[in-house]
Amino acid sequence: MTDTIVAVATAHGIGSISIVRLSGKDALSLAKKLIKSKDLAPRYATFSKIYSKDGDFIDEGIVIYFKSPFSFTGEDIVEFQTHGGFVISNLITEELIKLGARIAQPGEFSKRAFLNDKMDLAKAESIQALITSRSEDGARVLARLMHGELSEYVNSLRDELVKTLAYVETCIDYADDDLPSGILEQTKAMLEENYQKLSSIVEVSEQRKGLIEGFKIAIIGKPNVGKSSILNALLHYDRAIISDEAGTTRDRIEESLQVGTHLVRIIDTAGIRDGVSNIEKIGIENSIKATKEADIILAVFDNSRVVDDEDRKILEICKNSDKKIIYVLNKCDLPAKFELNLDNSLQISAKNSSNLILCELKTYLDTKNYDGIMLSSNRQIQACKNAKEAILRANNLLEESLLEFFTYELNLAITEISSITKPYERSEILDAMFSHFCLGK
Amino acid sequence: MTDTIVAVATAHGIGSISIVRLSGKDALSLAKKLIKSKDLAPRYATFSKIYSKDGDFIDEGIVIYFKSPFSFTGEDIVEFQTHGGFVISNLITEELIKLGARIAQPGEFSKRAFLNDKMDLAKAESIQALITSRSEDGARVLARLMHGELSEYVNSLRDELVKTLAYVETCIDYADDDLPSGILEQTKAMLEENYQKLSSIVEVSEQRKGLIEGFKIAIIGKPNVGKSSILNALLHYDRAIISDEAGTTRDRIEESLQVGTHLVRIIDTAGIRDGVSNIEKIGIENSIKATKEADIILAVFDNSRVVDDEDRKILEICKNSDKKIIYVLNKCDLPAKFELNLDNSLQISAKNSSNLILCELKTYLDTKNYDGIMLSSNRQIQACKNAKEAILRANNLLEESLLEFFTYELNLAITEISSITKPYERSEILDAMFSHFCLGK
Repeated sequence: MTDTIVAVATAHGIGSISIVRLSGKDALSLAKKLIKSKDLAPRYATFSKIYSKDGDFIDEGIVIYFKSPFSFTGEDIVEFQTHGGFVISNLITEELIKLGARIAQPGEFSKRAFLNDKMDLAKAESIQALITSRSEDGARVLARLMHGELSEYVNSLRDELVKTLAYVETCIDYADDDLPSGILEQTKAMLEENYQKLSSIVEVSEQRKGLIEGFKIAIIGKPNVGKSSILNALLHYDRAIISDEAGTTRDRIEESLQVGTHLVRIIDTAGIRDGVSNIEKIGIENSIKATKEADIILAVFDNSRVVDDEDRKILEICKNSDKKIIYVLNKCDLPAKFELNLDNSLQISAKNSSNLILCELKTYLDTKNYDGIMLSSNRQIQACKNAKEAILRANNLLEESLLEFFTYELNLAITEISSITKPYERSEILDAMFSHFCLGK
Repeated sequence: MTDTIVAVATAHGIGSISIVRLSGKDALSLAKKLIKSKDLAPRYATFSKIYSKDGDFIDEGIVIYFKSPFSFTGEDIVEFQTHGGFVISNLITEELIKLGARIAQPGEFSKRAFLNDKMDLAKAESIQALITSRSEDGARVLARLMHGELSEYVNSLRDELVKTLAYVETCIDYADDDLPSGILEQTKAMLEENYQKLSSIVEVSEQRKGLIEGFKIAIIGKPNVGKSSILNALLHYDRAIISDEAGTTRDRIEESLQVGTHLVRIIDTAGIRDGVSNIEKIGIENSIKATKEADIILAVFDNSRVVDDEDRKILEICKNSDKKIIYVLNKCDLPAKFELNLDNSLQISAKNSSNLILCELKTYLDTKNYDGIMLSSNRQIQACKNAKEAILRANNLLEESLLEFFTYELNLAITEISSITKPYERSEILDAMFSHFCLGK
């Protein structure tokens, strides 16, 4: 853990400044070689020419040395603020590698920060979620989590369970078998209370995941009802279309759309985007899949055609879904032949589609705004779910007076909750978590 | 020019750090409001919480104050190093705007640096070209230009012309009409020498523009010769496909491909990417257009079909082009029916296409590597061309002994060359130039 790692810490793209970050025991000595300098005062922004290992001029920029332990990772760090773009920061990274640094794994800077007690896991994950967040509302929540509010909440939950456990264990030591009934009731009440707290934070976090990741929307409906034109109208309404850089591959492009302060991601399942040919075969499967993936479903029907079996299947899918459904009756400028009465449906034609739908989306999304504490990763949610289940089992064991097994389950619940902020013993879990972080973090 | 401007200085995207840059007379006082701090020591990297105007916690990060005149712009600058991503840096920018800063125009930081004598135009343009450069070789050349070598070269050219002018003007003062023949010859020799220097730097710069912008490649050929599969093979050969963020719009996607140390941009003219239907109508026009735009043409023919009129037209276009042409005979795994003998053509089939073509591209591109001085913008190239023409006219006027007109033209040449590094009088030219810079620069 003492080797020196390097990575570009700014986003990949055209910008005026890039940062190359170097962390580890040799950070300072390697950096000095590139700037041909004897000294770097800690925390002082030094303007310097930057050279290759062989002495060729590469760039000029600001170099800052953060002396251990007063740095992000807790190790010696040197940051090179270079001219932006694709090439210079890569060149400098390469020179540092030639000098003996190693390219950092994704999340490795944060992992070192965690291992050096600079931050707990909840904070590390909040920062990562903050970086990938697309919504201002999400960022505000995450700022609070990063600030330590989630860690406080989780630690207080854990402390209560620890107290309960200690209490029961003390009683076990004194009583021969059963707990006194007063203590039994009190313990059950505490378990119930903590179970409820866990349930509610899990529920809030699952429902509001979209604040962090961007809420997902799917447009479903049989062929030729106008899904593509609705998609295009939505995307062109606001010119600030963002192509998700992570998703921009040749095979799958996910469209993003700003709705008020929210970022909405439009799920691109085959046939929904440009397909007419595919959806006839796999349309229903796609619609079911989309309703599972998405937070919001736009279910589109054609007002100018009579209701058919496919429409009915779409309606059935919607009725069986617990997601937010927005019913859209398209082609309302044509004579009406669609006999079903869709409650609360948006009656649109190609010309006015985007306005009405955006308004409806915004109204719904604004109900998702949130000013409280939530979990910021699936890992945290899973840990809480595991803790919930352990508490449930503990509760049953308590009723059956199987106190040894009860303490085992309660310990499990405590371990699960602890894992949100404090280390698992098993390093592969840490590795798995940090490897989802972005490079240079 | 004393108002305070703000912009995000790092690339737009997912990265671990973003920088918000604030420059102007109120930079320090506005920054202090966001960090609720009394003081910021110049050049000291201060870790601080960052708040909104209304006191809500937004993020925590490093804040650095660069005191005028020791900053990039020459004005007071404060940099906020925040967590990366899309949202936080925008939130901080918005808060600074609420406090009275103004969002910077593209290039406005550089423009202020220029106006405050922190750099000349040649350096400003080299930096901008460096940022957008995609090739390491280009970056190396640009680093030298940025370092001042272009400015030195241009200034020495200008000085020689100024000397010539002064010399001739002195003679005019003493002589009644004609110049003594010795002086005439000497002057003409100096003009000729400077004309040659200008010609050669213009030629080098035009031929090697691709070092900075990325060399452009076009794949031409009649329908169904396998253009798309060649394109796909090239793009999938190296998994490091870069989608040009500037070009990534719904209407036009430009593919980029790394070949050795070079970045190649594949021109996406309609019909070349995925079209079969279009090219039959507008194929020839597209091919002509592509050969004009591109630096390198891949001309593809089908070995399994007999030569037809369309093939012949493609061949004719290639013969009339001064660009690098790579002839590709595709489908060589099928029985040969293509009767023409294409010299130096690559004989490929779907399976081996990318290797051979990439090798040929690399060999060609490596001849474009360059270790000298070149002009880094069209503006500079145009100025040199204008200077060349003025020198040519001056030379003719000298032969006709029209000395007044001669000095006028020579002055024009000097002004044009000066404009590469030193200000034009006309501010709209400055505005036009800096507006092509990226935001936050």
